[in-house]
Amino acid sequence: MDLNADLAEGFGRWELGDDEALLGVVTSANVACGFHAGDATVIRSAVERAAERGVAVGAQVAYRDLAGFGRRFIDVPRRELTDDVLYQIGALEGFARVAGTEVRYVKPHGALYNAIVHHAEQAAAVVDAVRAYDPGLAVLGLPGSQWLEQAERAGLPTHREAFADRAYTPEATLVSRREPGAVLHDPDEIAQRCLALAAGEPIRAVDGSEIRVLADSICVHGDSPGAVDIARTVRDRLADAGVELRPFAAGGR
Amino acid sequence: MDLNADLAEGFGRWELGDDEALLGVVTSANVACGFHAGDATVIRSAVERAAERGVAVGAQVAYRDLAGFGRRFIDVPRRELTDDVLYQIGALEGFARVAGTEVRYVKPHGALYNAIVHHAEQAAAVVDAVRAYDPGLAVLGLPGSQWLEQAERAGLPTHREAFADRAYTPEATLVSRREPGAVLHDPDEIAQRCLALAAGEPIRAVDGSEIRVLADSICVHGDSPGAVDIARTVRDRLADAGVELRPFAAGGR
Amino acid sequence: MDLNADLAEGFGRWELGDDEALLGVVTSANVACGFHAGDATVIRSAVERAAERGVAVGAQVAYRDLAGFGRRFIDVPRRELTDDVLYQIGALEGFARVAGTEVRYVKPHGALYNAIVHHAEQAAAVVDAVRAYDPGLAVLGLPGSQWLEQAERAGLPTHREAFADRAYTPEATLVSRREPGAVLHDPDEIAQRCLALAAGEPIRAVDGSEIRVLADSICVHGDSPGAVDIARTVRDRLADAGVELRPFAAGGR
Amino acid sequence: MDLNADLAEGFGRWELGDDEALLGVVTSANVACGFHAGDATVIRSAVERAAERGVAVGAQVAYRDLAGFGRRFIDVPRRELTDDVLYQIGALEGFARVAGTEVRYVKPHGALYNAIVHHAEQAAAVVDAVRAYDPGLAVLGLPGSQWLEQAERAGLPTHREAFADRAYTPEATLVSRREPGAVLHDPDEIAQRCLALAAGEPIRAVDGSEIRVLADSICVHGDSPGAVDIARTVRDRLADAGVELRPFAAGGR
Repeated sequence: MDLNADLAEGFGRWELGDDEALLGVVTSANVACGFHAGDATVIRSAVERAAERGVAVGAQVAYRDLAGFGRRFIDVPRRELTDDVLYQIGALEGFARVAGTEVRYVKPHGALYNAIVHHAEQAAAVVDAVRAYDPGLAVLGLPGSQWLEQAERAGLPTHREAFADRAYTPEATLVSRREPGAVLHDPDEIAQRCLALAAGEPIRAVDGSEIRVLADSICVHGDSPGAVDIARTVRDRLADAGVELRPFAAGGR
Repeated sequence: MDLNADLAEGFGRWELGDDEALLGVVTSANVACGFHAGDATVIRSAVERAAERGVAVGAQVAYRDLAGFGRRFIDVPRRELTDDVLYQIGALEGFARVAGTEVRYVKPHGALYNAIVHHAEQAAAVVDAVRAYDPGLAVLGLPGSQWLEQAERAGLPTHREAFADRAYTPEATLVSRREPGAVLHDPDEIAQRCLALAAGEPIRAVDGSEIRVLADSICVHGDSPGAVDIARTVRDRLADAGVELRPFAAGGR
Repeated sequence: MDLNADLAEGFGRWELGDDEALLGVVTSANVACGFHAGDATVIRSAVERAAERGVAVGAQVAYRDLAGFGRRFIDVPRRELTDDVLYQIGALEGFARVAGTEVRYVKPHGALYNAIVHHAEQAAAVVDAVRAYDPGLAVLGLPGSQWLEQAERAGLPTHREAFADRAYTPEATLVSRREPGAVLHDPDEIAQRCLALAAGEPIRAVDGSEIRVLADSICVHGDSPGAVDIARTVRDRLADAGVELRPFAAGGR
Repeated sequence: MDLNADLAEGFGRWELGDDEALLGVVTSANVACGFHAGDATVIRSAVERAAERGVAVGAQVAYRDLAGFGRRFIDVPRRELTDDVLYQIGALEGFARVAGTEVRYVKPHGALYNAIVHHAEQAAAVVDAVRAYDPGLAVLGLPGSQWLEQAERAGLPTHREAFADRAYTPEATLVSRREPGAVLHDPDEIAQRCLALAAGEPIRAVDGSEIRVLADSICVHGDSPGAVDIARTVRDRLADAGVELRPFAAGGR
């Protein structure tokens, strides 16, 4: 199993999250690329430390929206979105090169991530970018999303992601953050779910029913001290249970 | 001899210069990288058309300053400047990769270009970036500048640039744009000078004295219709005189 | 009748439109406020020249999106949008104050203009901003839009706008720019329509049927040399027909 | 005596400082205006809370540099700088108007603050802006600076500022942050100094000598939990000593 989290989400004077702590937990780092967060120095630091620790570097591509932290849907035309994604992958790859590694996968961020679950044109735009850049570059996303389905049809290596701390509907989609109970907070419950995911066993949906979620990677969060603690708990429980933790995209492209 | 000019200097709705016309004239394209100008789409178009025509692609790196078009000195600390330059080279390389070519050289833009003639620390910052990215990546700059001298000491392939339409002092430095007569406008005079530069013959300084300027590339401008005409005249005269025009950084890195 | 056009839509090195020429044509200037276009210097110049000529200054508020020129819908939450609009009105008012005038009206730009025809929450956000700033501040918009209807309910002075060069559907809404024939190009046809609008007479919809469009102001464009010529033609024809041209929001607030 | 501190220095997702706590300590709030920090929502909140508590609102104007937090000198030409400052004052005034107050003073931020101690042209640019906006608008700055001296000659109401936690040279200028001992950390020492400043008594320079610093306002910091505690200590000690704390710019303009 792989654990992924968002890194390099500060910008200039503003810090966010504890990259150092997270790099001790995860096996894949979704590194911000400067469009929603991440100045050049914080990106470079994150990439270099990830490389040192053997954590796989992924491009956390986003809408160009620092003021909104990439969390607001923007109706970007297809060609522009493809080019914006290419720009971000390239920028990150420069730092990966300097750090002796390479960009191993692409995981869209925030509103773009949510949009391309259903928005076929924007999903196609991001797929176009990855395929143009390197048809061997892996993508990470929600099972059943336009993003993952179109990537698969395009021949890109696809990987499915589950969320450690988000409630699922009986249909195995995420409960909207606007609904009560959308985010889990109990470390034990979260760790228990991750164990089930790792074992390929069913997990409980928000209504108590059992659902099966297939995952190659589990997303954990690190933007609060409590979040990092939970992520550590998840890792420790998985390790104790004998689950091997390693990047889903470990090899070269 | 090589002819270089700035490309991809529009941004979103705003156009600047005639990239298509310039690509019919120059052998090296200094492509904006998004920090002073150049959105992802205009960059990608410029790189793809340059690649199609066999024009070498260079990274026109700059301070992060869209409002000032990179023409205002910014006192960026060394480490930050290095990282900002790496970010820009990487972003451009992504588009070069998609276009089947690669970034062949680095030429700083505007206020950064001017600063690192004398500013040793910022010159070092840019040299650090290029060397970290690829010690085989060429640099283009003003003879005698900190930028070129430090790059040479660092073992980078260095290339000297002369200006087709800028007046020179008797000491072979550029006359400041704030001085009268700093910019030449007569196409014949400009073409004549370029022929002399190509033949390794002396040119006239602003005071009428003869100076010798060694150049591997001549910079022409294209940000007005008149400028493109002058650039065409330069190219035609050089061709008529039997001067072979080809990129100074034609081979792979 | 009033004629309005967009001004101050350059940014730094990038110029757009001919503000000087347009100020000789229109009676109301929709001045960009820095979020989609307009650096501080171009805004100040436009406001000062407008004030000198007795042209009313309006705030052309927009999404924060320089790269997209405010033409891409952004899903900005209501409170944030209200505050972004307030910021823009205030910034423009500072320049109006220095020029001895004041912001006379608010006209949203681009994608925001289009969104709040139907998007009730964003329309409410902009209305909230105007009302909080000054309940006597006028608004300009499309008849029947959420924007104008909510503004009216909120007690703001509302003014209806028609377009000189846009085709209308039989239902008196604008034909989408994606449809053929959405934009008129014939100066005579455009001037004829403006005469009809000024006289309160019916105009022709895209299917040839007659529709009645009530307008307090006609929007003309100036972002190309041809557009300025058309705007001049419109003005001259209206003047020749004895239509008095003056700002719809001429008095103080 | 007046106590001032920087507020509204977050941006979008990124928080910085504890505005709520600081507003319980200071009598004047230097509110960021969006160029180095401060999105519209954080600015509006700070202004509204300041108004509720009777804390005077000042415009903390800065270079346009979010990535550098306004801490990097930018060689902005005079006219552009004037216009950028006007833009920021106007934007802030809009929120002050909505909150039922007004901008009471201008205090430049970061690198601009430091530059205009000596940089006569940039000092003149900021003075031009304030005078054009309102000749009755107060300015706050370092005694002996170009900024304060030019403002005084221009007839603006000027106020002198001392720093609670910065070491002074024997010449009564600030010790550079690059020098050891530039920043004081001991709450008792800081409070003691503030008592001396309030009483018009000499304080100790970094070399132990006594210097006299005249101040209408003392700047405290709030960008760390420790800093807020120190600010509270300063306020309590001054209050215990019978020093009346009130805004230096309390009345209307």
